[in-house]
Amino acid sequence: MIDSARLRFVIVGGVAAGASAAARARRLSEHAQITVLERGPDVSFANCGLPYHIGGEIRERAALAVQTPASLQALLALDVRTSTEATAIDRAAKRVQVRSLASGTSEWLAYDKLLLAPGAAPLRPALQGIDDRRIFTLRSLQDMDRIEAAAGQARRVVVIGAGFIGLEMAEQFVRRGLHVTLVELQHQVLPQLDAPLTLLLEDELRRHGVELVLGDGLVSFAGGEQVSATLRSGRTLEADLVVLAIGVRPESSLARAAGLALGERGHIVVDEFLRTSDADIYAAGDVVETHDLVDRSATSTPLGGPANRQGRAVADHIFQPQRARAYRGGLGTAIVRAFDVSAGVTGWTAKRLRAAGRPFRTITVNEQHHAGYFPGAQPIQLALTWDPRTQRVLGAQCTGLAGVDKRLDVLATAIAGELTIDDLAQLELAYAPPFGAAKDIVNIAGFASCNARDGLVDPLDELPDDAETQIVDVRPAAMAKAHPVHRVGVLNIPYRELRARCGELDRARPVVTVCTMGKTSYFAARVLAQRGFRVQSLCGGLRARLDPRSPGKLPTA
Amino acid sequence: MIDSARLRFVIVGGVAAGASAAARARRLSEHAQITVLERGPDVSFANCGLPYHIGGEIRERAALAVQTPASLQALLALDVRTSTEATAIDRAAKRVQVRSLASGTSEWLAYDKLLLAPGAAPLRPALQGIDDRRIFTLRSLQDMDRIEAAAGQARRVVVIGAGFIGLEMAEQFVRRGLHVTLVELQHQVLPQLDAPLTLLLEDELRRHGVELVLGDGLVSFAGGEQVSATLRSGRTLEADLVVLAIGVRPESSLARAAGLALGERGHIVVDEFLRTSDADIYAAGDVVETHDLVDRSATSTPLGGPANRQGRAVADHIFQPQRARAYRGGLGTAIVRAFDVSAGVTGWTAKRLRAAGRPFRTITVNEQHHAGYFPGAQPIQLALTWDPRTQRVLGAQCTGLAGVDKRLDVLATAIAGELTIDDLAQLELAYAPPFGAAKDIVNIAGFASCNARDGLVDPLDELPDDAETQIVDVRPAAMAKAHPVHRVGVLNIPYRELRARCGELDRARPVVTVCTMGKTSYFAARVLAQRGFRVQSLCGGLRARLDPRSPGKLPTA
Repeated sequence: MIDSARLRFVIVGGVAAGASAAARARRLSEHAQITVLERGPDVSFANCGLPYHIGGEIRERAALAVQTPASLQALLALDVRTSTEATAIDRAAKRVQVRSLASGTSEWLAYDKLLLAPGAAPLRPALQGIDDRRIFTLRSLQDMDRIEAAAGQARRVVVIGAGFIGLEMAEQFVRRGLHVTLVELQHQVLPQLDAPLTLLLEDELRRHGVELVLGDGLVSFAGGEQVSATLRSGRTLEADLVVLAIGVRPESSLARAAGLALGERGHIVVDEFLRTSDADIYAAGDVVETHDLVDRSATSTPLGGPANRQGRAVADHIFQPQRARAYRGGLGTAIVRAFDVSAGVTGWTAKRLRAAGRPFRTITVNEQHHAGYFPGAQPIQLALTWDPRTQRVLGAQCTGLAGVDKRLDVLATAIAGELTIDDLAQLELAYAPPFGAAKDIVNIAGFASCNARDGLVDPLDELPDDAETQIVDVRPAAMAKAHPVHRVGVLNIPYRELRARCGELDRARPVVTVCTMGKTSYFAARVLAQRGFRVQSLCGGLRARLDPRSPGKLPTA
Repeated sequence: MIDSARLRFVIVGGVAAGASAAARARRLSEHAQITVLERGPDVSFANCGLPYHIGGEIRERAALAVQTPASLQALLALDVRTSTEATAIDRAAKRVQVRSLASGTSEWLAYDKLLLAPGAAPLRPALQGIDDRRIFTLRSLQDMDRIEAAAGQARRVVVIGAGFIGLEMAEQFVRRGLHVTLVELQHQVLPQLDAPLTLLLEDELRRHGVELVLGDGLVSFAGGEQVSATLRSGRTLEADLVVLAIGVRPESSLARAAGLALGERGHIVVDEFLRTSDADIYAAGDVVETHDLVDRSATSTPLGGPANRQGRAVADHIFQPQRARAYRGGLGTAIVRAFDVSAGVTGWTAKRLRAAGRPFRTITVNEQHHAGYFPGAQPIQLALTWDPRTQRVLGAQCTGLAGVDKRLDVLATAIAGELTIDDLAQLELAYAPPFGAAKDIVNIAGFASCNARDGLVDPLDELPDDAETQIVDVRPAAMAKAHPVHRVGVLNIPYRELRARCGELDRARPVVTVCTMGKTSYFAARVLAQRGFRVQSLCGGLRARLDPRSPGKLPTA
């Protein structure tokens, strides 16, 4: 450890990254002078829990206020100053100007090392009517209190933005008994995911009475007895309360004014040790741009986990630089629960890979979350992207009623370990009937990817609708009859009869096999391919297109 | 693909490995002649589910009988012959002798490729009285039926062996209302794990009325109105029903008679493509010895997952050899649920590393299974072993009330990816309050390992009991008073007071810090170490030594 006695470590921001850095710094040095400056009245609060207190699922507000300046003084001998804003950095003199929001007085505070961890602010676009006091964003405990107070009087709420926070808010408002309209500019909820993985979420939200307004954006607000939100479509939504959850912008004005390098979208650029362009100034958390774990491109991951670990990494690099490890980069692993359904992502989705122009392949598989013969098995769906050159897993998305977090964590770990689709096929995961399956869906995804890579199956993403293609529905006759596939040229040949009946098909015309989960259609495709048919299998089955709890429900043509 | 049309593929054993090989073979070749020989009356049944039907948790017996010869014929065009035993292999002529157990007649069956997947048989030691018909082992659906019938009349049952199957049986017998005595030769349940990780399981078993007899072995049985089991200690246990679950032996007599190479413990030795010493004969499943994923040493992993994937790998190597991937090896990932507690392991435990004479380090950490501020957080404990030369994770064990399977799967994946303890600290896992924490216990285990490696803390495994060592109990005074640590020289200095009160300690004598979870004691050790004390922290805290739901309950001295 370097001689860090009496080192002056000043931290701007006392929530996730800042609080982690301060705590780790104290463990590494009992003698450093550690000062935490927080503009808000609270430090180290559980910001990811805010929506759940609004809905009453986290009952005690105190559960969210993890620490106070006094407790941090007692536990960690930290000098924590809340309601205190850092207003300027004098890099030459290594000092930061600090203003007390209570007294309005300013002073200069000297530092040896400075950490900027001010976070990111919810976006609040400059639209007409935006200043109505019934239009909220959620960042602090005070925001939470205000929304909670407003919700107490409200009957209708409009949530703008169906990302992670928007979905959590929608769920919690329903929990309170409010009527919720959820507006999203994209044509799907959770735009971070590929659309097919969000269908189950949408169905679940609707099932709980959430009105989804997709593919529509905000134009303006107007005040009145209620707030009135006008959308691009011309539609007007009335609400007692509006929550904006359309993203965040990094709070980098202090860094910008100090001349630190910023990225294209305004984040503070840091190196692998979270150093800014000034070697004595670090930055961490939602305000920074780091690099992507998969392809090293510039990226920001404004999430609680990365913020905490980045804060810790800063303290390591300051107080034990010879032992500090480079920050490996962000993956963007995230998950959300909406009622009984969970959905999440790690790494790169197909749409992001497509937009970046990167070569990739993708498959979708359906399974049960544990052995199907054990009571309580729930459907789960997993989509995988991989690099066709290296076979490395690039990303995964998962949705279902149980076990979604487990599969995301396994795949986040697989990406960190640079595992290939062949490695996934061989993963030896924990299996006992209450927990998994002899072939877990992660293994199955590995199998399916390898099969696609090896040409054993040609997975198809969208059902064709032409006179040329023969669509073979290989489900049992009763199911096919009760819930027909709405396409031209559909022929039902149950898989069990396929070997005997493939004479009914025309070898000269292409064939697409279809089933519920995408597995039997693969089996059928193997039978036909080896008999000389040009055949593709609908990847992920009909279930990848609807609610797995209503397997009969089919996509309308 | 090789020209495999009409290739004769004969498979001995129709359960996990054999059934998987047959199914995969058919996908790869519609034209191969695939014959499955199964000595028992059933194929492809869910053998991991057998205990759960005995306890009634899996209600329908039919749920376990996954396939029948007729269904496999219909779905996969397989020639499945049940109640048919392979009695000899003529390797020169490439044929296998087959005897029908029904008719007693034998015939020779020619093969191009042969797979031996006969499994392993439960051990039944040649003890006096072992032939009593009330002493059972569990392997087949028929065994299950017999035990179920016997349990219907029984009041007391003795289960011999507290491994995975023994624990499942004990739980399910309790579910049926029977009095259960569980006998284990080792001084702990689940001897596959290091002892501290099994304390919670033992407590849970006792809480549900299971009588644990640990560190005692079986000597003989005697029949009478009940079965009487005499133990080494001289103790006698009376029961209406005894189940032996003391391990398995590979069914390798056919391979031995054919002159195939066997391992030290009688398993069939295979290469990375599951080939035996005869290039046209493969073996897979519980009967084989493969290699360990971590250190390449010879190992057997008689578990459902590996068996399934090995069977699949055999078919790949036969039918698409140019695309077949080497089997990466076994990890021994396993999990068990006993009532509300689960426990499991992946890779190498400390005791196994110690026995093998391999250098290793280990730590234990306690956390909540998701954010503590979100309702329903449950305690979870994780122990990690790693290689001090490479920093690579060698193994993990986990126990708790929720989320145990997830952590085992993440760590199994980490081992497959050759991740280090530094990598664990940085894993970006899925975090939303219902699912995880900003710093998941896997991250925490990485942090703690790195801290131990970097000398920031000296983790101690056992509390000393001498006059020299100063044991500092850093818990709050009320807790320390209510539940004192039973050691000499214990001084209670709550962590919050430690900086002010460290003058009460003697710098010349060693110090051990103690708390409930092992975290505050680490914080305290940092405070003291930086003030010149020789200090160690009790790793995993007092909780690593008892029921986490009764955190006040302390180990008796």
